[in-house]
Amino acid sequence: MNCFSKSEWLVDSRKIPNEFALIALICHPATLLHPIPLEASLLKEGENMDYVYGPGRNNLFVPGPVNIPEPVIRAMNRNNEDYRSPAIPAMTKTLLEDVKKIFKTTTGTPFMIPTTGTGAWESALTNTLSPGDRTVSFLIGQFSLLWIDQQQRLKFNVDVVESEWGQGANLDILAEKLAADHAHTIKAICIVHNETATGVTNNLATVRKLLDHYRHPALLLVDGVSSICALDFRMDEWGVDVALTGSQKALSLPTGIGIVCASPKALEASKSAKSVRVFFDWNDYLKFYKLGTYWPYTPSIQLLYGLRAALDLIFEEGLDNVIARHNRLGTATRLAVEAWGLKNCTQKEEWHSDTVTAVVVPPYIDSAEIVKRAWKRYNLSLGLGLNKVAGKVFRIGHLGNLNELQLLGCLAGVEMILKDVGYPVKLGSGVAAACAYLQNNIPMIPSRV
Amino acid sequence: MNCFSKSEWLVDSRKIPNEFALIALICHPATLLHPIPLEASLLKEGENMDYVYGPGRNNLFVPGPVNIPEPVIRAMNRNNEDYRSPAIPAMTKTLLEDVKKIFKTTTGTPFMIPTTGTGAWESALTNTLSPGDRTVSFLIGQFSLLWIDQQQRLKFNVDVVESEWGQGANLDILAEKLAADHAHTIKAICIVHNETATGVTNNLATVRKLLDHYRHPALLLVDGVSSICALDFRMDEWGVDVALTGSQKALSLPTGIGIVCASPKALEASKSAKSVRVFFDWNDYLKFYKLGTYWPYTPSIQLLYGLRAALDLIFEEGLDNVIARHNRLGTATRLAVEAWGLKNCTQKEEWHSDTVTAVVVPPYIDSAEIVKRAWKRYNLSLGLGLNKVAGKVFRIGHLGNLNELQLLGCLAGVEMILKDVGYPVKLGSGVAAACAYLQNNIPMIPSRV
Amino acid sequence: MNCFSKSEWLVDSRKIPNEFALIALICHPATLLHPIPLEASLLKEGENMDYVYGPGRNNLFVPGPVNIPEPVIRAMNRNNEDYRSPAIPAMTKTLLEDVKKIFKTTTGTPFMIPTTGTGAWESALTNTLSPGDRTVSFLIGQFSLLWIDQQQRLKFNVDVVESEWGQGANLDILAEKLAADHAHTIKAICIVHNETATGVTNNLATVRKLLDHYRHPALLLVDGVSSICALDFRMDEWGVDVALTGSQKALSLPTGIGIVCASPKALEASKSAKSVRVFFDWNDYLKFYKLGTYWPYTPSIQLLYGLRAALDLIFEEGLDNVIARHNRLGTATRLAVEAWGLKNCTQKEEWHSDTVTAVVVPPYIDSAEIVKRAWKRYNLSLGLGLNKVAGKVFRIGHLGNLNELQLLGCLAGVEMILKDVGYPVKLGSGVAAACAYLQNNIPMIPSRV
Amino acid sequence: MNCFSKSEWLVDSRKIPNEFALIALICHPATLLHPIPLEASLLKEGENMDYVYGPGRNNLFVPGPVNIPEPVIRAMNRNNEDYRSPAIPAMTKTLLEDVKKIFKTTTGTPFMIPTTGTGAWESALTNTLSPGDRTVSFLIGQFSLLWIDQQQRLKFNVDVVESEWGQGANLDILAEKLAADHAHTIKAICIVHNETATGVTNNLATVRKLLDHYRHPALLLVDGVSSICALDFRMDEWGVDVALTGSQKALSLPTGIGIVCASPKALEASKSAKSVRVFFDWNDYLKFYKLGTYWPYTPSIQLLYGLRAALDLIFEEGLDNVIARHNRLGTATRLAVEAWGLKNCTQKEEWHSDTVTAVVVPPYIDSAEIVKRAWKRYNLSLGLGLNKVAGKVFRIGHLGNLNELQLLGCLAGVEMILKDVGYPVKLGSGVAAACAYLQNNIPMIPSRV
Repeated sequence: MNCFSKSEWLVDSRKIPNEFALIALICHPATLLHPIPLEASLLKEGENMDYVYGPGRNNLFVPGPVNIPEPVIRAMNRNNEDYRSPAIPAMTKTLLEDVKKIFKTTTGTPFMIPTTGTGAWESALTNTLSPGDRTVSFLIGQFSLLWIDQQQRLKFNVDVVESEWGQGANLDILAEKLAADHAHTIKAICIVHNETATGVTNNLATVRKLLDHYRHPALLLVDGVSSICALDFRMDEWGVDVALTGSQKALSLPTGIGIVCASPKALEASKSAKSVRVFFDWNDYLKFYKLGTYWPYTPSIQLLYGLRAALDLIFEEGLDNVIARHNRLGTATRLAVEAWGLKNCTQKEEWHSDTVTAVVVPPYIDSAEIVKRAWKRYNLSLGLGLNKVAGKVFRIGHLGNLNELQLLGCLAGVEMILKDVGYPVKLGSGVAAACAYLQNNIPMIPSRV
Repeated sequence: MNCFSKSEWLVDSRKIPNEFALIALICHPATLLHPIPLEASLLKEGENMDYVYGPGRNNLFVPGPVNIPEPVIRAMNRNNEDYRSPAIPAMTKTLLEDVKKIFKTTTGTPFMIPTTGTGAWESALTNTLSPGDRTVSFLIGQFSLLWIDQQQRLKFNVDVVESEWGQGANLDILAEKLAADHAHTIKAICIVHNETATGVTNNLATVRKLLDHYRHPALLLVDGVSSICALDFRMDEWGVDVALTGSQKALSLPTGIGIVCASPKALEASKSAKSVRVFFDWNDYLKFYKLGTYWPYTPSIQLLYGLRAALDLIFEEGLDNVIARHNRLGTATRLAVEAWGLKNCTQKEEWHSDTVTAVVVPPYIDSAEIVKRAWKRYNLSLGLGLNKVAGKVFRIGHLGNLNELQLLGCLAGVEMILKDVGYPVKLGSGVAAACAYLQNNIPMIPSRV
Repeated sequence: MNCFSKSEWLVDSRKIPNEFALIALICHPATLLHPIPLEASLLKEGENMDYVYGPGRNNLFVPGPVNIPEPVIRAMNRNNEDYRSPAIPAMTKTLLEDVKKIFKTTTGTPFMIPTTGTGAWESALTNTLSPGDRTVSFLIGQFSLLWIDQQQRLKFNVDVVESEWGQGANLDILAEKLAADHAHTIKAICIVHNETATGVTNNLATVRKLLDHYRHPALLLVDGVSSICALDFRMDEWGVDVALTGSQKALSLPTGIGIVCASPKALEASKSAKSVRVFFDWNDYLKFYKLGTYWPYTPSIQLLYGLRAALDLIFEEGLDNVIARHNRLGTATRLAVEAWGLKNCTQKEEWHSDTVTAVVVPPYIDSAEIVKRAWKRYNLSLGLGLNKVAGKVFRIGHLGNLNELQLLGCLAGVEMILKDVGYPVKLGSGVAAACAYLQNNIPMIPSRV
Repeated sequence: MNCFSKSEWLVDSRKIPNEFALIALICHPATLLHPIPLEASLLKEGENMDYVYGPGRNNLFVPGPVNIPEPVIRAMNRNNEDYRSPAIPAMTKTLLEDVKKIFKTTTGTPFMIPTTGTGAWESALTNTLSPGDRTVSFLIGQFSLLWIDQQQRLKFNVDVVESEWGQGANLDILAEKLAADHAHTIKAICIVHNETATGVTNNLATVRKLLDHYRHPALLLVDGVSSICALDFRMDEWGVDVALTGSQKALSLPTGIGIVCASPKALEASKSAKSVRVFFDWNDYLKFYKLGTYWPYTPSIQLLYGLRAALDLIFEEGLDNVIARHNRLGTATRLAVEAWGLKNCTQKEEWHSDTVTAVVVPPYIDSAEIVKRAWKRYNLSLGLGLNKVAGKVFRIGHLGNLNELQLLGCLAGVEMILKDVGYPVKLGSGVAAACAYLQNNIPMIPSRV
């Protein structure tokens, strides 16, 4: 399948990086992000926002921010505290230790920065690289595009490897580039583990194998925003140098903590990296780590307690069980899509994502209509198609603290919406296919057996 | 269909009321209520209860207590207050006015008592009747049985009209009794609007017609615990004298407020009723209503704010829209049951309940196994079969703040469980039937169009 | 001091119990409870109640409902659950065990009833006594008056022993009555441990001594609403037969659980007690205790989790430390009152209450003005004087989850209000006296040392 | 008074900016921030953090993060939402409008960035200046020091104007510099409106007057972290070009939003500013403002609802009333300090801060002991002395949603602690002085009159 061929708009960014940035902005998701028009009449100033009210729980299936479990909401339901009292450093210490587990690292150093995924990207880049440094970066969808845009604006020399949207990172080209780079001009490989816009998961183990094969010293920087804590991710085993995620994704928290984890090699690189940085500077954190107070500036007390609760839940379930659950949710969704007779934006099985599925709609349907209708009629929140795939795909996020019955409700909703917009779906078909698989694969809940 | 024939255990309670009570206790649901054994090992003392943890939201489909909407949870998230400050009476005043709307009464007087449905029953009975008074009461399931048990223990002379479980109140027998009661020895008709154990809705309009036809002055006392605010209920139009509900049902609050609404005739009756009562005495409330302080003893501040928020949501949606939504949920559930090839415990369409569906399982299946499995494998909470229908039915509660997609997730779960326990269900069949109906009938969410 | 002499209104209730009840109602607090007029303009219907807004935390010093600790608010911040799942009985089991500790009993049987203190009173009485039974009951303030009123309405033969308001129970008269009662016509002694209206604590150990001395078999029923979990209370050691409290007092929860604890002797008495009861019947609970499901009707899920958290906090602090803290708060308050040159309503030191202090104002001041002003100017909630002491005293509640600095803020506020209303207080004097004591007596917080 | 003379450590940063940065780090608060040793035994890994438990509410008087009002905690108590649904932009629009009011600007453009005050600083600087640009920056305490450190690390040419700690910005020197700068080499004046470390408020109106007097085009960048929404601040009137604050200060929210407001002149400057920035780039926001979707990356849903509630409370009280309340709190605190016989770190009345008071202790007392004792014995959180004034001052934060009685509880606590550590305070003296003032000045609460 080849529904989103390389478009003419992507010029060679190595040659004219500034213009690429410009083009990236012209083609920026902003023009496509919000097809639901904001009518002035919808909400008057000062009106209580709860009044965009629909009965029952909102069925939240965007690929982030995701559903927060009740125990985490509870943990965050609190007044502020003095973050310099002994309680906060003591808790922070446990968080820093436990956060490493979700990255599967024992040698990494984590930073829990009061920022978003975009800020976490910036922290990863500015602490390890200097202006002008060459990075190899894979453009496979909207979020990898935005990261590339950031790299360019931070003045790195970005060597963009583009794939069609729906394909994974082109590792053959990476191999060629590594083979050719005897001078080690490539300072970092920047790769999104899971491209949230297209539901594509890249093979990081292969990236590491290539680096090892060519004995290339480039840093491996990984955006794990929609993967870590949901997909199989192994920082130490795969030799990842910087990995990062955001609290509002698989950790199932509100937005507000960008978690960046640095390998010893990345820490070493930070000593000579010349990118200007203050707020995102790892060094400020490291000083406070040594002092045992941990925080160079004020953290969110609420998010720290929330993260503590979120990690407790993950370890209670078992990280590998969490990952297996995401695989069940992803598989069930893909089976439903197939049963509906629709195509997955992801072009090959090896790239299938267990956290988000981008579903391609027939040409006579505007996928934004599906997302609007989900919201307006079914109290269901789905993800829009972004940028090149706007109007062409809608996305089902199935990550975070979510169970199979919640997903099945979503899938049943999608079936009705497909019918609403004129697609000849057989109602019940997707749910039937998903159930046939799930009924064989859902384990008993350990704490209840 | 006639799956639950009249059993021998129900003796004529008019003759030996005490023994009936005894029998009621012997056959008490207690022996059947909790087939899920409580293993000592399940939870150790002091252990955090959140640790009976399953991923994602609990899919709560018992017929009460039901899902609380987020705005209501928020409204209750507060410290205590002085209930004698002006703020609480001011709010109470609005609550008393607005609560009348959900009973569809303009002439009734509501009491919001810090108690449960059982206490609301007791308040209705003791304020209007005297020991020895004859009541006609319909036994059609576990909750009508428990109310009859209470009536007997409160020393009324209960004239029990029994039906098979799965049938509605036998109004032909009521007609006979009213016709024969020239002396007006019948002081009250006690009827459960919606029997939660069997999913049977009684026809209150007909009861009123019979009373009017025979010009009988008996009070009409109605248990609306699983009906009011979800089913069509018209206190004034149907001449109901006392109606009652509990906060944890269609109002979608925590347990803790028994709401009792009395007609002018019931208030008049309360002046001469000789049943001993203090905590449940309407008179204490009436005195404080006059004073404008409203509370004879301390109310729950949190529940008052919660009730305010719950009523706001109901009026925001529109009470008639709420009732229509419950009709959609009930219809969808019944269509699924039919598609599964199973029988509804409710024997005739006229009695079908839009708030709870009791599904009859084949004889070779223990329905309790279905409920256990739902909890242990799918994080789904279903209702057990109670007393005579224990093991024979399981119940899907579909009342309160709930939307169609949530229900469809539940139905998909039930399909898998049916397969788990050996019933040859066609996976997806129930969801398909439900979706076919819902896709044609769900309205747009008004606030979002 | 003798500011509230016996009034003529209290007739001998043994002779004309019905009229006493009538008089009780005439003199009912309702006429006095709410001197703050509820202006129609204060809150319009439907207006957000949060808008009776004052900056900062409300300083809540009424003697109930009291401040809820944040961890308890958090624990209650949750959706409903199926109370028949294994989680709730498992938790209930721990609650029943732990609740006994706050009564200091190992032989008692606790009942956690979804009701208020008034309901808990009714449960204590109706389960142990029969209509016509003689009780000896002490009238020393508004709450003992209301309990007596209930006893009369429940048709007991109440032998009222009256004291001036501000004095404790007259135990000399009790001794006389016990000595004279060779026929053991007295079935129960009903006594309020701590009269919340006057700040008087009765000596229960002496009551027990008298009963033992006269070898009298009367049951000892104790209202511990404003004492248990705050004052020294020893159910087993003092041979209390029924003790009770409410969740919104020293347990620092919302209103909604009446906790009643019955001795083996009380349980035995319940077998023959003829008072009609259903909702409050211990027997229904006992049946479910045996079954291990614990609940005859739906409890509040939220309050159960809240009670779990509240008990955890109390045991974390240590029950004896909690009691010592209340002694510090009570002592500090009394020292401030003395420094202000005002009188404590409590006439002798032996009766001083550590949970509430009723402060007598000079005749030229209306104490209700003080309470109004506290609310309207200082965001401080104080207790009104009730019934006979209306206008004459105001009350400072110092019970529940409260620390010394919070109390000192309240005392400083009271000083300013006293000046506002024309009392020549020396500003700072009360706080100075309280601090002089507290600075010597506050212990280090164990978890922080 | 002259307790903190200019130290030798501050070299001329214009000459050796890098070394100044180094020195800043050597003298970094990190070495002094946390004198409370974190004992390993205090909290074991995984232990519930609520167990650093003290009875009652924590008395939180650090100068940030500050107490969150209950309605705001409630508003944030929610699940995540799709931030691309129409509800979030609609609310964001009202927030952007209303946030301008707290800056007292009609021409400014606000940015609500998911970051802390440190990030807000960085956003202000990098959007308006280019590397090498000359800034005049006032060093008067720890937070101005840290901002200067940031300016240096961002490669600006920082012209530091130092004052003794306890004094305000030296505006005479500013006048000299402006007078001498005919070439307009000064691109920006960077000034902290309220230095949180010393309790010093600078006179911004005078800064503006000087700029106008010398017709100097330098931008005026103001750190309003501990001033805006608490002190008199007038962006438009004073010609402030960039002003900023953090959500955890006077807005009384959790940490997590850095609010930066830019004048038209600042926006114009941003077009040519060459500092590298992506996450903090205003331009990305502006693009989304035009589109009506507002967010270039994921905001915290919870903080947006919290900010809405916080602003509603502020407007309910009235911004000018909020400022007047802070003046009362500040005045009362200063009167108490005077009554204790202690000195305010702030050397002149014109610099007195109404949001934080730094109290100088006698030389024989270590102020850190006071802070430790407050936490360990009184459940009171006070601010430490930082850097040069470590051990010499402790700080009372009196900003945010706080009322006078809460403050008086704190002041009473401080008196006891002073006695604890050997200072011969007269107990009650500070409270008496504060009350004498407050009793004359607290207004009635408008919503309660």
